[in-house]
Amino acid sequence: MKRLALNQATTERWTVAEAVDGCVRAGIGAIGLWRRQVGEAGLAASAAAVRAAGLHVSSLCRGGFFTATDPAERAAALADNRRAVDEAAELGADVLVLVSGGLPPGSRDLPGARAMVADALDELVPYALRAGVRLGIEPLHPMFCADRCVVSTLDQALNLALRYPTEAVGVVVDTYHVWWDPDLYAQIARAGDRIASFQVCDWVVPLPAEMLLGRGHVGDGYIDFAPIAAAVDAAGYRGWVEVEIFNEKVWATPGDETLRVMRERFDLVYPP
Amino acid sequence: MKRLALNQATTERWTVAEAVDGCVRAGIGAIGLWRRQVGEAGLAASAAAVRAAGLHVSSLCRGGFFTATDPAERAAALADNRRAVDEAAELGADVLVLVSGGLPPGSRDLPGARAMVADALDELVPYALRAGVRLGIEPLHPMFCADRCVVSTLDQALNLALRYPTEAVGVVVDTYHVWWDPDLYAQIARAGDRIASFQVCDWVVPLPAEMLLGRGHVGDGYIDFAPIAAAVDAAGYRGWVEVEIFNEKVWATPGDETLRVMRERFDLVYPP
Repeated sequence: MKRLALNQATTERWTVAEAVDGCVRAGIGAIGLWRRQVGEAGLAASAAAVRAAGLHVSSLCRGGFFTATDPAERAAALADNRRAVDEAAELGADVLVLVSGGLPPGSRDLPGARAMVADALDELVPYALRAGVRLGIEPLHPMFCADRCVVSTLDQALNLALRYPTEAVGVVVDTYHVWWDPDLYAQIARAGDRIASFQVCDWVVPLPAEMLLGRGHVGDGYIDFAPIAAAVDAAGYRGWVEVEIFNEKVWATPGDETLRVMRERFDLVYPP
Repeated sequence: MKRLALNQATTERWTVAEAVDGCVRAGIGAIGLWRRQVGEAGLAASAAAVRAAGLHVSSLCRGGFFTATDPAERAAALADNRRAVDEAAELGADVLVLVSGGLPPGSRDLPGARAMVADALDELVPYALRAGVRLGIEPLHPMFCADRCVVSTLDQALNLALRYPTEAVGVVVDTYHVWWDPDLYAQIARAGDRIASFQVCDWVVPLPAEMLLGRGHVGDGYIDFAPIAAAVDAAGYRGWVEVEIFNEKVWATPGDETLRVMRERFDLVYPP
């Protein structure tokens, strides 16, 4: 239980202060913050709140969205990512999570979009290195490839990450996005110390009309968490384990109750 | 245009006779049949109808659904697959398409389910070989992994197929299911003469509530068809190219109009 972390997306309606207090009440030692809520609370106030509570910041979500054909848009995306790096530094976050972006509007050039991600990383990594912030490339489930994230597998994320120093760029293993992958265990082993974040939530069917919001509490769906967690640990990961759930019903539940379920279900990730 | 084939799922409300007549009217030379409609029309009558019309049967859809933990269910699935082989033989189909099945009810053992598929193939392949019917393992998009098909990538389908003679078992390349795969072109090249069927339809977003029905006409979505078709051909495939679309709106459209759109859009698959 001591590695359990709350990703703020799970309690989407809590402010930073509310989420921090909720973690303290639940005995949860780390929080993954989101830029929207950090922006609403203020960066300095957010950093002060987590420090005063003695919480660790396991991640900042998120940067990325690099796939733009328009040069001005591309420059704006990079500028925004530099700001995200600065925020992650001030918050002392273990990692800045990057979601690559989907196909540019009107484009069907998937290899081209993927090349844009590599190019953007080339520009962003030196900045992050200077700031002492580690970037985490997150592969999203292939069903998000068109409109959200052209990085679809752990293999692909690793191929991108391995071009840079380990301390600069890692990968994010989120069970929801990678559980189906026939190559999952081989890629986790290959990742080794490149694993910058481990996130858990469950795959439930049917998916809702808003595909983004179809994730379930650990134990509500089809994923066998324990062997994946064991493989991540065997690869050398010693960091926090964030519960990150996008789900309208979870969001409508009082946060304390959500954290109680998170704690209870964490036994399925690391059986006692 | 001479390789264009209608998969009967695209005109789901047409009987076999209506679909055969529609193909003849549209100058489409082959049809992929579905067992439900063949069953309704009668096997002998269906075979006679396609022969009388001079149509080729590019596929029979479908066998599979091998993932059962209950021995009786498993035996029933295999018996049904042997019937499907017999039907494919009588229809003279190029391939019997196999969809593996998802996780067994209540199970989270994905490697176990995948092993069941390999075991079932071991039992079915000798029967299919004797009948002279080629089996085609179809990877479905990873979003169907939990409840429909634990074979999620072309790589994985090939690893299964390569355990048997080329004439016995191939793979199905359906753009909808594999377009996102960073390893797609390498796997198509690797497949070579294992490609037993090539199917096209487009990835559209948002997906509808019923995920199965979210496919679009070629050109309505995000897939770049021409390079995939070129790669399939470069790998040695010379067979039919089926348009297979599961979509409530397409089904509600008069079949002749659907076939007209199919013909028109086929230029995006093989640019003139």
